[in-house]
Amino acid sequence: MLSKTHSKYIQSLHHKKSRDADNVFIAEGNKVVPELVQSKQFVCIEILGTKEWLQQHEVFLRKYYNGPLQEVESFELEKISALSTPNQVLAIFKKAAPVAIEVKGKISLVLDTIQDPGNLGTIIRIADWFGIQNIICSNNSTEMYNPKVVQSTMGSLGRVDIIYTDIAEWLQEHNEIRVYAAALDGKPVQQCKGIKEGLIIIGNESKGISKEILELVNEKITIPKIGEAESLNAAVATGIILSHIV
Amino acid sequence: MLSKTHSKYIQSLHHKKSRDADNVFIAEGNKVVPELVQSKQFVCIEILGTKEWLQQHEVFLRKYYNGPLQEVESFELEKISALSTPNQVLAIFKKAAPVAIEVKGKISLVLDTIQDPGNLGTIIRIADWFGIQNIICSNNSTEMYNPKVVQSTMGSLGRVDIIYTDIAEWLQEHNEIRVYAAALDGKPVQQCKGIKEGLIIIGNESKGISKEILELVNEKITIPKIGEAESLNAAVATGIILSHIV
Repeated sequence: MLSKTHSKYIQSLHHKKSRDADNVFIAEGNKVVPELVQSKQFVCIEILGTKEWLQQHEVFLRKYYNGPLQEVESFELEKISALSTPNQVLAIFKKAAPVAIEVKGKISLVLDTIQDPGNLGTIIRIADWFGIQNIICSNNSTEMYNPKVVQSTMGSLGRVDIIYTDIAEWLQEHNEIRVYAAALDGKPVQQCKGIKEGLIIIGNESKGISKEILELVNEKITIPKIGEAESLNAAVATGIILSHIV
Repeated sequence: MLSKTHSKYIQSLHHKKSRDADNVFIAEGNKVVPELVQSKQFVCIEILGTKEWLQQHEVFLRKYYNGPLQEVESFELEKISALSTPNQVLAIFKKAAPVAIEVKGKISLVLDTIQDPGNLGTIIRIADWFGIQNIICSNNSTEMYNPKVVQSTMGSLGRVDIIYTDIAEWLQEHNEIRVYAAALDGKPVQQCKGIKEGLIIIGNESKGISKEILELVNEKITIPKIGEAESLNAAVATGIILSHIV
């Protein structure tokens, strides 16, 4: 049985302010929780699951985690869940320690004002698929610990290094690395094979890449359009570009 | 001012049962509504917008539409909206008449149990970007008139022909066309250039392509994995495959 106070505390972690205050975040679901428990980036503080789920996963969890396994009823999980579809498990993790990012000799992603949590999560998952180690987010991008971001990474959150920074300044500090941008006017992506080092900028869902950042770009890459859609989803564009150049 | 009865009626259209009963659906937003008003597939029945929005768009709308332009307050729109982010305009459209799909000499998409509305909408938008005319959905795929699908197509709904059918039967009736499948074990997508005719099957978000359908596949296509993510989002995989073969 979950106490009212504890239930309210977990609900408060749906909001950035409370996550920041305690330096923690929540993750949910059968897929995401076990992946993050294994991850070296995050320390698990508490796991709350249904009786059946905890019984099924206890042996696995205990390899990585010594803290409390709190048994809760489905209706209690529903209350503390930040997602519309209820899950069998929710866990609280400490946020990752700040990472030092090394961009030499590899391809990294730079996100300029990605605002949709689903898009950011999907981009993190794509980066993990293509072996991209680093994501540099503009300060005004959506927060990586938003529950919807955590959910849509499907566990990849623990395998990609993510920093938030003033990306204009950061790009100027790293001006020895070639900067590519996903744009509507550029070199067709099919002709951009075998890039071994570079920063690939993905712009905002509706406004694209900001003017200040565009000035720092060395080469634009485009996904040629055959039909009539005005744009592609930012995560889809990221996946397409990486599949061609990696 | 919106009457209570009318407000309730529009709210009822958030649900499939009511949409089916009246053969209509709702679309929202500054981008989607004008695109669908122009579309030849859909007849617009009513537009409800804020005073400012209607004033700004009246000249454009009247080129395609003679019906009522109902002025509503923002709080009224919020009530009738099916989306979490409120918009300035909502419109009711008649569903499209059944279409006859011609798959010879072109590439078409076949969706096996795509269940997330955001994924289906994004796939429709991707199809429109790459000039794919046809999408054949399994009967148990999410409904194309779900408000979240409509929203995430960003207006592409009016430019792609979509049918729902028993896809196992349908594939057998079209066995003169080569069938490709997005799979984890197959020919690397980078080696699949210049396909001019074919059906590309995209499987369910977590279960992939069903066994029954897999037996009808001629060739599997895979997106080589470099990192560790277990899978890619279904819409992202669709975008990647189309960008290589089209």
